[in-house]
Amino acid sequence: MARIVQKYGGSSVADAECIKRVAQRIVATRKAGHEVVVVVSAMGDSTDELIDLAEQVSPLPPARELDMLLTAGERISMALLAMAISDLGVEARSFTGSQAGVITDAVHGKARIIDVTPGRIRHALDEGAVAIVAGFQGVSQDTKDITTLGRGGSDTTAVALAAALEAAVCEIYTDVDGVFSADPRIVPTARKLDRTTYEEMLELAASGAKVLHLRCVEYARRYALPIHVRSSFSGREGTWVVADRSTEDEGDTMENAIISGVAHDTSEAKVTVVGVPDRPGEAAAIFEAVAAAEINIDMIVQNVSAASTGRTDISFTLPKAEGQKAMAALARGKDAIGFEALQYDDGIGKVSLVGAGMRTHPGVSATFFRALADAGVNVELISTSEIRVSVVCRADDVAAAVAAVHSAFGLDAAAPEAVVYGGTGR
Amino acid sequence: MARIVQKYGGSSVADAECIKRVAQRIVATRKAGHEVVVVVSAMGDSTDELIDLAEQVSPLPPARELDMLLTAGERISMALLAMAISDLGVEARSFTGSQAGVITDAVHGKARIIDVTPGRIRHALDEGAVAIVAGFQGVSQDTKDITTLGRGGSDTTAVALAAALEAAVCEIYTDVDGVFSADPRIVPTARKLDRTTYEEMLELAASGAKVLHLRCVEYARRYALPIHVRSSFSGREGTWVVADRSTEDEGDTMENAIISGVAHDTSEAKVTVVGVPDRPGEAAAIFEAVAAAEINIDMIVQNVSAASTGRTDISFTLPKAEGQKAMAALARGKDAIGFEALQYDDGIGKVSLVGAGMRTHPGVSATFFRALADAGVNVELISTSEIRVSVVCRADDVAAAVAAVHSAFGLDAAAPEAVVYGGTGR
Repeated sequence: MARIVQKYGGSSVADAECIKRVAQRIVATRKAGHEVVVVVSAMGDSTDELIDLAEQVSPLPPARELDMLLTAGERISMALLAMAISDLGVEARSFTGSQAGVITDAVHGKARIIDVTPGRIRHALDEGAVAIVAGFQGVSQDTKDITTLGRGGSDTTAVALAAALEAAVCEIYTDVDGVFSADPRIVPTARKLDRTTYEEMLELAASGAKVLHLRCVEYARRYALPIHVRSSFSGREGTWVVADRSTEDEGDTMENAIISGVAHDTSEAKVTVVGVPDRPGEAAAIFEAVAAAEINIDMIVQNVSAASTGRTDISFTLPKAEGQKAMAALARGKDAIGFEALQYDDGIGKVSLVGAGMRTHPGVSATFFRALADAGVNVELISTSEIRVSVVCRADDVAAAVAAVHSAFGLDAAAPEAVVYGGTGR
Repeated sequence: MARIVQKYGGSSVADAECIKRVAQRIVATRKAGHEVVVVVSAMGDSTDELIDLAEQVSPLPPARELDMLLTAGERISMALLAMAISDLGVEARSFTGSQAGVITDAVHGKARIIDVTPGRIRHALDEGAVAIVAGFQGVSQDTKDITTLGRGGSDTTAVALAAALEAAVCEIYTDVDGVFSADPRIVPTARKLDRTTYEEMLELAASGAKVLHLRCVEYARRYALPIHVRSSFSGREGTWVVADRSTEDEGDTMENAIISGVAHDTSEAKVTVVGVPDRPGEAAAIFEAVAAAEINIDMIVQNVSAASTGRTDISFTLPKAEGQKAMAALARGKDAIGFEALQYDDGIGKVSLVGAGMRTHPGVSATFFRALADAGVNVELISTSEIRVSVVCRADDVAAAVAAVHSAFGLDAAAPEAVVYGGTGR
């Protein structure tokens, strides 16, 4: 008997039929003798509908009230799921984030979990009940106000609860079969990964793979909690995200897997600050101006300055939605910072190669850039970490780039696997 | 400056436009210098939609989970209302029943308030904010589970909060102009009452007047809290429900108002238990059988037994929705109780005349029955309290009976008042 936390996203509980199917899976797990805690997102598009309502009422709703509003979504789905489980003869009790002991800071809309005190969940498990917990929400430690965790919040709730309850595994149910070596919509021969590491999963998530959110992987790594990403539409094994990719029986063979996958992201834009004086503090001034506008940036690239001018260009990427705000913030600081001009480009895409093996295998970068060149992809920016190489290219070239790199590293499956690919809710 | 509790029903917050209009009224009250606490119901039909969802998922949802589900409705409306108020430049904070300190017993679906500890509401008021509270819901004292208060729950929340906060008045906003001397849909000449007493309001509510619920009036009477029933669609004064109908300037003149109104109810059915042996304990056995099935009954009438048989008939009325259950419970007990037969009649209506003045004015009953006779209404059952006379007649005769009695007691207004009549949400 194990203690298992299962998380179901919005598409898995989109309507009454979906909820009943999920209930059957939960009951099967319970009847197999396990203790089951379920974290659930709001039904399908219901969160978007609530946001629409808020927009009809107010152009700029207070964040506290928006959180109060949005948390109604999980309240509905979790109560319905508990009802469906009860109908199958297994006791189920639903709990809000607050009732489940998800304690956060007071940053409405993107609160961070600072403690989890799941006394009521333990009590429900001790009494043999299945505990259903609202994802994405908590209660602020100081003000006792309802908070939401922001994007990926339900995944984070699940992993945090699993860690606090010392669960054997956190199962993340979604509408795909697991984590793939590339987006199957672009690369039909993409392979489902059986196992990957927290480290690789972090890089994949940061590089545009949407199946798991960065925060939840970070949380799982900190507590060494195994995550099992799998489909709620099939009984197949999905992808295990663990500390160490090799298993006991496989031993060294897995060591040979240099690369785990190719990720891409076309949601970003590129800002180039042209003609920055090459002196200490210039980059700091630029990014302080952007940070003051509360914008998160991704890649930053600076090349050597031209000897003739003593000036350089600094480029960075950021979410397209924040492009306008960043440009305005920089324009206001133009004189103080002393650059010459600003350029904005939202026609870019990012392609990333991720794999722990590249640390110890020379030649990865060479193969990567050769594949891109052979596919006729022009590279605009390059950025690397210890287990990742990323390039920025034209958005139109992304599909070709991903396919070429995927093939060059021998990641293609023998035959395309049947998959459905989509978002993971929140 | 006064402390005012305002309650808005579902029809007053049915959509974004309604919510904005209610927000303006609240802000006007706040800007007049008052402290304002608002209790709000779920938007329009949203509670019914949630019940539909529950029925799609489960034929018999657990009461705890149904409460968890339904309380999402007020969470949505209160957050939207707080947003709309903020947009008008006044700070507003929404609170769930639990956050507002509405402590109940653990009877899910029809919990009773056992304490109100509105510390967070007081704090919000002290800081100058408008407090918005979810109606209809609380938290159980022992299990800390979310509960709902059942029918009329939001009115009860408002009155209970007003009492705990020692508010000057509890304003109940609805879609009619106040309490009328009869249902204006049946009697176009019905008059809006300017003042009525808790006692009369209790009898009116118990007799079918839907504008205020029995529980909320009982609560207000216990704490001598004035209720002001008024329309959310106009600025007019509505009906004050207070301890004493006379006002200082009016003095004796109001004493002359013998009758406050005529109420009717066509939601009940009549069960007659035929041939009950006339011996002690028979009525107890009958009503124990009905109570065991958790059915609330209304009128009970027993006449003297026929000398020839030593048997009598006992009739009672109850909500139509519970008729089947009551008949089944009695049928099961037929042999034990010893009656001869059961009759069921759902074609009945109840007409009630209510007025504190009838206590001291003889002849009220005579006028009442003469009016019914002149209108050709056949009386099937009669039941009285100190300030009420009720009859059961054919449902088809109810309209004529109400109009005739209304006229006979001189209640008709000079000209019909313009009103919109409807339900009050929950």
